[in-house]
Amino acid sequence: MISHQCKLRVLYPDTDKMGYVHHSNYARYCEKARWELLRDLGVSYKDIEDAGVMLPVVGMSFKYLKPAVYDELLRIETQLSEIKGPLLKFDYSIFNEKNELINKGETTLAFVDAQSRKPCHPSPLLLKALKERENIVN
Amino acid sequence: MISHQCKLRVLYPDTDKMGYVHHSNYARYCEKARWELLRDLGVSYKDIEDAGVMLPVVGMSFKYLKPAVYDELLRIETQLSEIKGPLLKFDYSIFNEKNELINKGETTLAFVDAQSRKPCHPSPLLLKALKERENIVN
Amino acid sequence: MISHQCKLRVLYPDTDKMGYVHHSNYARYCEKARWELLRDLGVSYKDIEDAGVMLPVVGMSFKYLKPAVYDELLRIETQLSEIKGPLLKFDYSIFNEKNELINKGETTLAFVDAQSRKPCHPSPLLLKALKERENIVN
Amino acid sequence: MISHQCKLRVLYPDTDKMGYVHHSNYARYCEKARWELLRDLGVSYKDIEDAGVMLPVVGMSFKYLKPAVYDELLRIETQLSEIKGPLLKFDYSIFNEKNELINKGETTLAFVDAQSRKPCHPSPLLLKALKERENIVN
Repeated sequence: MISHQCKLRVLYPDTDKMGYVHHSNYARYCEKARWELLRDLGVSYKDIEDAGVMLPVVGMSFKYLKPAVYDELLRIETQLSEIKGPLLKFDYSIFNEKNELINKGETTLAFVDAQSRKPCHPSPLLLKALKERENIVN
Repeated sequence: MISHQCKLRVLYPDTDKMGYVHHSNYARYCEKARWELLRDLGVSYKDIEDAGVMLPVVGMSFKYLKPAVYDELLRIETQLSEIKGPLLKFDYSIFNEKNELINKGETTLAFVDAQSRKPCHPSPLLLKALKERENIVN
Repeated sequence: MISHQCKLRVLYPDTDKMGYVHHSNYARYCEKARWELLRDLGVSYKDIEDAGVMLPVVGMSFKYLKPAVYDELLRIETQLSEIKGPLLKFDYSIFNEKNELINKGETTLAFVDAQSRKPCHPSPLLLKALKERENIVN
Repeated sequence: MISHQCKLRVLYPDTDKMGYVHHSNYARYCEKARWELLRDLGVSYKDIEDAGVMLPVVGMSFKYLKPAVYDELLRIETQLSEIKGPLLKFDYSIFNEKNELINKGETTLAFVDAQSRKPCHPSPLLLKALKERENIVN
């Protein structure tokens, strides 16, 4: 299991009239976090796509435990938790500046061939980067 | 159980470089759908907020079955499926122009007092509108 | 000069913590309005792209006169004001529910060949649709 | 004249089906850049709002010279170019990784009293921070 931390500041347009971050933004926050995990692993998502494998999201869920507010510096802990068949799963825990857990999320992505747009084997680039770190592939 | 249908056209900025609707947009699509369900029921979410009750999302999940593309006219079937304590649950089925199910979603919202920002009883305005239609409250 | 009106309801995520529509959303509102003008003219922007011509924005400006709020039904008056060389210009006036002018905008788009990604002649599909309505081409 | 540079990576949802950054995102990019300029000056926009002064955008314009693509690390040069009456103006130049100028923008913001929602004198917090750096106030 590969884990990664990143920080992300809440922008003004991410807030809504409640004064909190609108719930839709967590999808974007977690996408940023998982691609930073990959970059830290030595492979960018851009490289993976350029090599012909896309990773669309096929499942996503979030539990919103506490609101986030404008200008907060959030901390996202991301785990690449599973690669199984054509699926890749990430888990997220988001913390506010008081270090309170404010959100638990998970996303499942599918390895898809960029030409045929059909499910395919895991990206060789990603597998190589993972093997160089540690082997989580089932 | 109250159900509602609405149509929604995919806008250009909703797409990403894959050529599909980016997964984050489904949160916005379903928010539009549930407030149109309420409006159809005779109460707008704005009225509910103006009367002092907010409805932040506390849980959300989506299964992405097929992609949606630019300019498609999607059909969203929304169900107000449960009111239990301070929670309100909606289920969504999204269909493309070929009438294929492309997305299954659910969101759980909490009734929150706009002043204290604490969980509160269900909005009286919403309960009144529901009783006039049919009684789904457990 | 071709003109068109459309209505558009302000969604919750379009608002920010000031309680107003965030200024960035007007770009999306006006994009929706101009493609509805084209659709009303008998040609969709999707058809234009599918026929090999893209219309990226090369200039955009807005004057924000009054704020818009959640759930307001805005009215957008759009004018296709000029086609000159590879450029296409639209002007927008946005009105609130009290019929007050709240925003004046303009966007300039370029006809671009989808393959070469270079400026090109105006879309034949668009020119045909315009000629059937009236001739504004300089 | 106060100037500032920041870097910003293009995220996947910022792209559209053309494969470029959708034009609406530049408003968000420049908002991030100007608040980073203020933070660098020693005052955050959050502090300014918390002290009772809001800064809504009253004018915005962009010239799009070249497209930006996914994962590019853009560089934004921001200038706080003028404070005149209740107005505050920023200019932006955005460069791609090849150091090509891809976008020129400007935004005009108004100092607004958060209670009355009327134009007001420039934020004392901002003026103080500016005087400590250099005096640009006309």
